[in-house]
Amino acid sequence: MPWSHEFAGRLDEHTIDSALLRDNPLGDPAQRPLWVYVPPGYDEEPRRRYPSVYVIQGYTGHLAMWRNRSAYRQPFPETADALFASGDAPPCVVVYVDAWTAYGGSQFVDSPGTGKYHSYLCDEVVPFVDARYRTLDAAAHRGVSGKSSGGFGALITPMLRPDLFGGLASHAGDSLYEYAYLHEFALATRALRDHYEGSYEKFWADFRSRPAFTKEHDGTLVMVYGCAAAFSADADGTVRLPFDPVTGQLVPQAWQRWLDWDPVRMIPKYADALRGLKAIYLDAGKRDEWFLDLGHGAVRAELAKIGVTDVHHELFEGTHMAIDYRYPIGLRYLAERLAPAS
Amino acid sequence: MPWSHEFAGRLDEHTIDSALLRDNPLGDPAQRPLWVYVPPGYDEEPRRRYPSVYVIQGYTGHLAMWRNRSAYRQPFPETADALFASGDAPPCVVVYVDAWTAYGGSQFVDSPGTGKYHSYLCDEVVPFVDARYRTLDAAAHRGVSGKSSGGFGALITPMLRPDLFGGLASHAGDSLYEYAYLHEFALATRALRDHYEGSYEKFWADFRSRPAFTKEHDGTLVMVYGCAAAFSADADGTVRLPFDPVTGQLVPQAWQRWLDWDPVRMIPKYADALRGLKAIYLDAGKRDEWFLDLGHGAVRAELAKIGVTDVHHELFEGTHMAIDYRYPIGLRYLAERLAPAS
Amino acid sequence: MPWSHEFAGRLDEHTIDSALLRDNPLGDPAQRPLWVYVPPGYDEEPRRRYPSVYVIQGYTGHLAMWRNRSAYRQPFPETADALFASGDAPPCVVVYVDAWTAYGGSQFVDSPGTGKYHSYLCDEVVPFVDARYRTLDAAAHRGVSGKSSGGFGALITPMLRPDLFGGLASHAGDSLYEYAYLHEFALATRALRDHYEGSYEKFWADFRSRPAFTKEHDGTLVMVYGCAAAFSADADGTVRLPFDPVTGQLVPQAWQRWLDWDPVRMIPKYADALRGLKAIYLDAGKRDEWFLDLGHGAVRAELAKIGVTDVHHELFEGTHMAIDYRYPIGLRYLAERLAPAS
Amino acid sequence: MPWSHEFAGRLDEHTIDSALLRDNPLGDPAQRPLWVYVPPGYDEEPRRRYPSVYVIQGYTGHLAMWRNRSAYRQPFPETADALFASGDAPPCVVVYVDAWTAYGGSQFVDSPGTGKYHSYLCDEVVPFVDARYRTLDAAAHRGVSGKSSGGFGALITPMLRPDLFGGLASHAGDSLYEYAYLHEFALATRALRDHYEGSYEKFWADFRSRPAFTKEHDGTLVMVYGCAAAFSADADGTVRLPFDPVTGQLVPQAWQRWLDWDPVRMIPKYADALRGLKAIYLDAGKRDEWFLDLGHGAVRAELAKIGVTDVHHELFEGTHMAIDYRYPIGLRYLAERLAPAS
Repeated sequence: MPWSHEFAGRLDEHTIDSALLRDNPLGDPAQRPLWVYVPPGYDEEPRRRYPSVYVIQGYTGHLAMWRNRSAYRQPFPETADALFASGDAPPCVVVYVDAWTAYGGSQFVDSPGTGKYHSYLCDEVVPFVDARYRTLDAAAHRGVSGKSSGGFGALITPMLRPDLFGGLASHAGDSLYEYAYLHEFALATRALRDHYEGSYEKFWADFRSRPAFTKEHDGTLVMVYGCAAAFSADADGTVRLPFDPVTGQLVPQAWQRWLDWDPVRMIPKYADALRGLKAIYLDAGKRDEWFLDLGHGAVRAELAKIGVTDVHHELFEGTHMAIDYRYPIGLRYLAERLAPAS
Repeated sequence: MPWSHEFAGRLDEHTIDSALLRDNPLGDPAQRPLWVYVPPGYDEEPRRRYPSVYVIQGYTGHLAMWRNRSAYRQPFPETADALFASGDAPPCVVVYVDAWTAYGGSQFVDSPGTGKYHSYLCDEVVPFVDARYRTLDAAAHRGVSGKSSGGFGALITPMLRPDLFGGLASHAGDSLYEYAYLHEFALATRALRDHYEGSYEKFWADFRSRPAFTKEHDGTLVMVYGCAAAFSADADGTVRLPFDPVTGQLVPQAWQRWLDWDPVRMIPKYADALRGLKAIYLDAGKRDEWFLDLGHGAVRAELAKIGVTDVHHELFEGTHMAIDYRYPIGLRYLAERLAPAS
Repeated sequence: MPWSHEFAGRLDEHTIDSALLRDNPLGDPAQRPLWVYVPPGYDEEPRRRYPSVYVIQGYTGHLAMWRNRSAYRQPFPETADALFASGDAPPCVVVYVDAWTAYGGSQFVDSPGTGKYHSYLCDEVVPFVDARYRTLDAAAHRGVSGKSSGGFGALITPMLRPDLFGGLASHAGDSLYEYAYLHEFALATRALRDHYEGSYEKFWADFRSRPAFTKEHDGTLVMVYGCAAAFSADADGTVRLPFDPVTGQLVPQAWQRWLDWDPVRMIPKYADALRGLKAIYLDAGKRDEWFLDLGHGAVRAELAKIGVTDVHHELFEGTHMAIDYRYPIGLRYLAERLAPAS
Repeated sequence: MPWSHEFAGRLDEHTIDSALLRDNPLGDPAQRPLWVYVPPGYDEEPRRRYPSVYVIQGYTGHLAMWRNRSAYRQPFPETADALFASGDAPPCVVVYVDAWTAYGGSQFVDSPGTGKYHSYLCDEVVPFVDARYRTLDAAAHRGVSGKSSGGFGALITPMLRPDLFGGLASHAGDSLYEYAYLHEFALATRALRDHYEGSYEKFWADFRSRPAFTKEHDGTLVMVYGCAAAFSADADGTVRLPFDPVTGQLVPQAWQRWLDWDPVRMIPKYADALRGLKAIYLDAGKRDEWFLDLGHGAVRAELAKIGVTDVHHELFEGTHMAIDYRYPIGLRYLAERLAPAS
């Protein structure tokens, strides 16, 4: 039945009371939902320890959306469960992390514009899970996976914290920002010009006054602003746009802050961390609307330059949308690479 | 929080064991989920009786999808609850009905190709609800509402059963089939030609062998076939396509059976039933991809021809997609019209 | 050089003073340009007679547009000349016919709404050419070729006048009207609703007051009206639309008059004429915006039903646009089939 | 009649034998067509001198294309003639310049990759015209106008040669290259990846082997390469792409050479030249596919920064396509500003 699934493993729902998110600048909740999945057999083998994979979401995603159902498909927590139930992948603990903000996302970085979501993941969620579940707590057995903004988070988190994460899977993760983002800036500028007199304030006032996403450019305007809050906010939280909202011209200093977060450009700087990873999985649709197929190709090319060639890189027929069926493929790859030697 | 809602009313989950759906031709379950919502105050006023509104879904919808969440929006069961909680609409019982099939939908008709979903709704669900909830059981206090295929169901059900339904709300309901469907036939023919040698059997074999909706025309091919199963199946369940899958040429007899189910064309025949309705609400997006804005305009025009002019008809800026924010507007209209005189 | 071509043959420019077009209902000129091309060698072999191919244009085409140039391509009169110069095709006389009207076209039919363009072609242009050029004047050596509306003209003219035309080449010719035209009616209705209060008069007043084709739906509205003038005008010239411009609903009687001009539906009636043809060439792009790839597939299927299977039918990668490079391919086919036995 | 126009003025066709284009690297002809239009009255007033406006074309344009006709519109040389015939604009000499190359265009710059088209215009065409026609030969009475790449040429030529040009009209001229070009690089990279193994050589081999523009990305691939030939060729003519054709990653040095040709970025450097202009006319469609509406907004903003505020800047409803009806508007503006004091 399309509306039911009997879990072979077990999905636990937790709430974390985060110290790091307390008093975040957007007033988003510091108490966050967290789901932890244990694979079939976990309770029957009380001494066995497991690799863990942390799963993060794309822009405008929040945890409860993992339950969203669609025709003829099962939600990822269920297809992941089926993967382990089938025995096709070594068992893992899978952790579903929430990083929603009032701007629709956090990019999984620490920012004075949104909050300390990177640290929240690394310094609060990971210890929370390790304390409560029988994980293998070495980086070599811990991975992170995500799509779109979540793919970006999966790419950068192990660069920043190789002590924690030894594997990553990025499905169409944000990268090669000149192609992923500049087009959005142009669309945003035009939308601001045509509807909001060039003012983001006027946009937000309008956006909050009516049902969300009923105007064509809502998605672009929200996403661009949210990324600016993540990438180029001042220390006091002021969001610095990487472009002039009236003319669209780039603001070099702010735009450079974005580029500093481009995984393609981060690779040389984090070469050592990347060389130590056990698993790198990259895929994207050939017609990805944000050219993240090119982004991942560039990631692979930069990885090769630093000598990292043990990379699974795959392009598939498709766009950026409805690609959740790829997630179990990446998860399986991580599970195999992060499993302990038998 | 985007992922939570505290119901002011109460949402009960039931399962109906349907006699009418037993042995349906597709082997779909005869045990169906059914949700019944009672508004705030229901339990406090044990002698009060309420109007009821039956809510049905669009193509490829099934009941659990009412829980799907998206950024900055709440699911309809929650916005409906909020509507009643605010006091902006007279209280109603709201009934969420499932009519999923293996083809993605039933069009809420009785068909040897899919099953007796019309009768299921009218002769099983309605009595089930009336027996368990304090509804006002006259047609004047019972409505039906839906979007897309659900809007179609909302349009035709009161025509067929004016003894049961006294009001309807159709959001972009299927209508004016020459514009809604013929374009789909052309796309389907081309997809069959280019990928399946003109054979629907080959399509189904491929579709079932891989993740659904990973090919561009999956949605069209499924929907067209499912509607043929609903509208133009033989008595033995054989699905008769309304077009030659090799050339695309219309098959007049089968196509006529579709047209016989076009709400625009049904109106003259069901004039008496329609004249008795207490509430007719129609809306659609001006850029609806299936031209259902034109469809509803034609519905209104045909209603006017039979003297039914007390119709709420509205076009809004938008397409066919992401218009769930319209549903509470239609619900409120029904609630007001179906409420008992105070 | 992209801007030059030295003709190997000769292109003569004539003006015909048409009796049949005099007093045409739209006040279009009765003096029409006509170009006649003679192949290389024509003047050197003064006793030789040649097959002839009449070339007609798509909607909104007029004769002078055959001179339009585009980057990296040559206009058809030049590529046709090159075809004969290369010796790749038996030599032909090629006749370029103008059938422009104030509505943008005539569909090459006789209509009280536009004028007698069918008769003009058959009873004035053909005799004019035969009188002045050394053509082989039997139908077996005379063909007609065109694209889009011109392809339609090429399909129907030999049906109506098998005594004159023994071959045809249709590049994406109008056919299978339910897919080619109904979508346009929907777009037209919506455009009239949103911009012209449902009134074609208001559209024409606006259209004539400003530069043409500066509004998105100008093309659709002009073409639909022009076809109605060709297909469904009253005897007094009044144009009867095949749909209600306010609701979009089909007007069955007028729509039937269109269908009576659908080549797919005409084939059974003109079976004898079609069986006598020496050459039938059909091609279309697989992504033709008007589904004329399906149209031609249906034409072929209907031809097969009447026993006509000696048909060149080809689908190519492409849309409806910029397909002039196909014309010499069709011309060559006609030249070979219409050439006298050597 | 749509296919005829009686000139009120006179259009003379010349051929220039260019010394500067001789031995150009692409082997394009050094003998170039040049059209010079004189307004009505020119021959009747043999002592009167006139302002002159040089008109240049967009990418893939060549001179003969000015004769292209389309339904319900007249070619620009005719609408320009009509403008002067009507007396709505002071009379001007209008010069139509050809700068076609084997890559489809020259961007009107001097480049070892294409040829000295800037110098050709300034040092050969202008003297040629001034020697043969009664022009007012001061810069204050000479303007340049164009669309798209021609608009770019119109923007930069007076910056480089304020001694020659005192006015400009840019219709959707290339500018703000991050939005105009980067998206094209992404599309080009993807097309090379999917069809040509990342090799431009393979593309050119394929492109030259078949009718042009029959594949979806032909236009993008040609244009990007041609602009690289204009902007970032080595001294020996080697074309340096501004991006890696395999990964799409920018090549900073080559990309910087493009940016050095961005009118938006050139303005500060050529402030004095710009401050001296008599006429600056800018327009673009609000939905320009290359965001040249934003480009022109940025041009205006940069002009304001250097104190140039006497600018006609206009956005109109429309895209980049079929906007030739705007040209007479820009021409009239130039004619008025460049006319001698009466």
